[in-house]
Amino acid sequence: MSIGVAEKRNTFLDDASDRALAGSLFDALRERTSDGVGITRQAYSDRESLALDLVEGKARELGLKTERDAGANLVVTLEGSEPELPFLACGSHLDSVPQGGNFDGAAGVIAGLAILARFREEGFVPRRTVKVIGLRGEESSRFGKAYVGSSALFGKLSAVDLATPAADDGRTLAECMRDVGVDIGRVAKGETLLDPKSVAAWVELHIEQGPVLVTRDLPVGIVTGIRGNVRHRTIECIGQAGHSGAVPRWLRHDAVFAAAELITHLDRHWRTLLERGRDVVVTFGVVGTDPQAHAIARIPGLVRFSLDVRSQSRETLEAFYDLFVSECGLISDERGVEFKLDRRLEAPPAIMDAQWVERLKKAAHGLGLPAEEIPSGAGHDAAVFADVGIPSAMIFVRNEHGSHNPEEAMDLRDFVAGVAVMRVAIKEAVQ
Amino acid sequence: MSIGVAEKRNTFLDDASDRALAGSLFDALRERTSDGVGITRQAYSDRESLALDLVEGKARELGLKTERDAGANLVVTLEGSEPELPFLACGSHLDSVPQGGNFDGAAGVIAGLAILARFREEGFVPRRTVKVIGLRGEESSRFGKAYVGSSALFGKLSAVDLATPAADDGRTLAECMRDVGVDIGRVAKGETLLDPKSVAAWVELHIEQGPVLVTRDLPVGIVTGIRGNVRHRTIECIGQAGHSGAVPRWLRHDAVFAAAELITHLDRHWRTLLERGRDVVVTFGVVGTDPQAHAIARIPGLVRFSLDVRSQSRETLEAFYDLFVSECGLISDERGVEFKLDRRLEAPPAIMDAQWVERLKKAAHGLGLPAEEIPSGAGHDAAVFADVGIPSAMIFVRNEHGSHNPEEAMDLRDFVAGVAVMRVAIKEAVQ
Repeated sequence: MSIGVAEKRNTFLDDASDRALAGSLFDALRERTSDGVGITRQAYSDRESLALDLVEGKARELGLKTERDAGANLVVTLEGSEPELPFLACGSHLDSVPQGGNFDGAAGVIAGLAILARFREEGFVPRRTVKVIGLRGEESSRFGKAYVGSSALFGKLSAVDLATPAADDGRTLAECMRDVGVDIGRVAKGETLLDPKSVAAWVELHIEQGPVLVTRDLPVGIVTGIRGNVRHRTIECIGQAGHSGAVPRWLRHDAVFAAAELITHLDRHWRTLLERGRDVVVTFGVVGTDPQAHAIARIPGLVRFSLDVRSQSRETLEAFYDLFVSECGLISDERGVEFKLDRRLEAPPAIMDAQWVERLKKAAHGLGLPAEEIPSGAGHDAAVFADVGIPSAMIFVRNEHGSHNPEEAMDLRDFVAGVAVMRVAIKEAVQ
Repeated sequence: MSIGVAEKRNTFLDDASDRALAGSLFDALRERTSDGVGITRQAYSDRESLALDLVEGKARELGLKTERDAGANLVVTLEGSEPELPFLACGSHLDSVPQGGNFDGAAGVIAGLAILARFREEGFVPRRTVKVIGLRGEESSRFGKAYVGSSALFGKLSAVDLATPAADDGRTLAECMRDVGVDIGRVAKGETLLDPKSVAAWVELHIEQGPVLVTRDLPVGIVTGIRGNVRHRTIECIGQAGHSGAVPRWLRHDAVFAAAELITHLDRHWRTLLERGRDVVVTFGVVGTDPQAHAIARIPGLVRFSLDVRSQSRETLEAFYDLFVSECGLISDERGVEFKLDRRLEAPPAIMDAQWVERLKKAAHGLGLPAEEIPSGAGHDAAVFADVGIPSAMIFVRNEHGSHNPEEAMDLRDFVAGVAVMRVAIKEAVQ
């Protein structure tokens, strides 16, 4: 980063009010929801409610109107001069995984609050109403399903979802939602609790969960899309077992050599696609020979492995998947092995609204900040908002050590930079 | 195979006496040592003793002299006209793995007996004494150590070996040896029970444990050497875990991609060495990500794998091992991972006696049989005899479905062909 940029950053990095507000709220959240190791505020738990209460208390202190919606999410409102217009929503989620970090989710809610606080302080009256939504239940750690809070708003929870028992106390999602005040009758009927037409946009600030911003020395990044994925939980490569010393290469059907070749070829193809400017990440997270049969001196007759391919582009996902299938065919022909695929799982990509991406980039430029685009590899509530047709946008803030662990480390100066970008863009959109 | 060869084979394939003797002994062994699924005659067990008794009974019927040596192995003797000369020994082992096959080991003992029977029947009196040794304890299934019977003959069992408990009943090797009549005092002192200088040669017939002879349609093969090996039980490839969606390729330290590349490169180098005429086989029999940490959506930070490299040539073993170390270095530099190697284990190759290899090939040629050379990938008692300086040789007989399982399938016609080759070669050597 050039010194020039760093100097310019000072104009907003010195913003004492944002830092004071955010610092005190993050500190309070950490203090009240620490579990001794990290932070625990699981979906639809008392500790999650405590987080909502803390933020709500601060919002009221600041003179903002607060309420809970039918999904028991926190809503903080700054009314616009034309309240009949679709409102602009921002925020994120207030739950966390067990022994997680303090910033994943909470940063986006506090960012929204800081923006509303400043608007009010400055006496700025937007044309459109602006709301901060502190969502519940984004993490999948308690009920196995992600984005429960935002999905509930749009009538997207099934009876199976609602009957899912919690990983900790075994109570159903429906019971836990009812306990914190969700109108479970409406949710169970699949009613829309929030009309997508009433929402002009969803803007979400979130810590980056990967290392890109840290590595590239960028305080913030403008998210272009949320990667969708194509997955297989278990692919079996079936060869033929045999004595490791007694079967020469030309008579082998070695499952490990076959799977290794597949993985290595796909790594090569991945590199080629990147060189052609495609967005894609590929992971074989679970790989193993058969523990019941494997041995040092035995040619492996079976390897099982998982596949996780992600891209912002549905077309790239399918292109990579086709390469995968094609390589399986070539290698099975060449090596006399068989690849058996289990059910293909998929989640579509979510594209961030192009106009909002430009608006956020312009805002960053105006503040003397780099305005680099970055894809989101992890999923976010923003994908749910985008899926129902609400123009959605995200800002990532630099964060070390990934997320979902106590070592999450976001510098408040970076957070304040992200808030500044978001504030400029929202101000432009609502005035 | 040409029709000409098949026609010539008839001259000895019609040998009714070899087939009758072998058929009746294999049948008796199968009947008496079947476990319902396969064959079980574990090292130093009653069932192994039963196998020795059966063969000994048949030898006596044939008018041959029998005894048990200090290692409680069966010895059948046809005395030579110059008994002071070093004797020629042939045979193999009579034990099996649990639920194993009927031919692994027993075929070599029965082959020796058929040869002595014919010599006696023909009134052939060799110059050198010829002995068939029915060894005990070749398989490692009961005590974890292979070649116990032959090792005991040459004073090569340690106190640790002798104190090893049996996998089935937990009794020590020493106790089990004593029970079947081994002079355990001498064995424990490491005394030489059989003076290598008294043995002119060791000739062992064995089923092939791989698919080469079946695939190449050869009834027998002349063994050139027993492959030694270099091994690692566990190599760790240590990368860095992370979110599968959030870390782009250029920031990854993916242990699976690194290990797959290593395995694929070594497969390529293996092919290159084979093209240059080197003898080598390579197996990564155990491969796996960390079950405590792996997940579909997590970049694998750790892969563990084993390595087993075998060759008849010590130089080739070392050359391949150097390639392995060199690839580990290149890939760790390229991908930012670390390869951690546990203790290197090794067993030296055993070279079969060149003069005996020629003699066996000549014998096969003379019988109109193909005389193809073949390496032994599995270990055999012959390696122990070779190690103490006794000129050693082996003949492999075609066998389907590998060994150590109830599906071992050796055709008696192939066995008789192997016996014929061995008989001609031994006759030449002892007259």
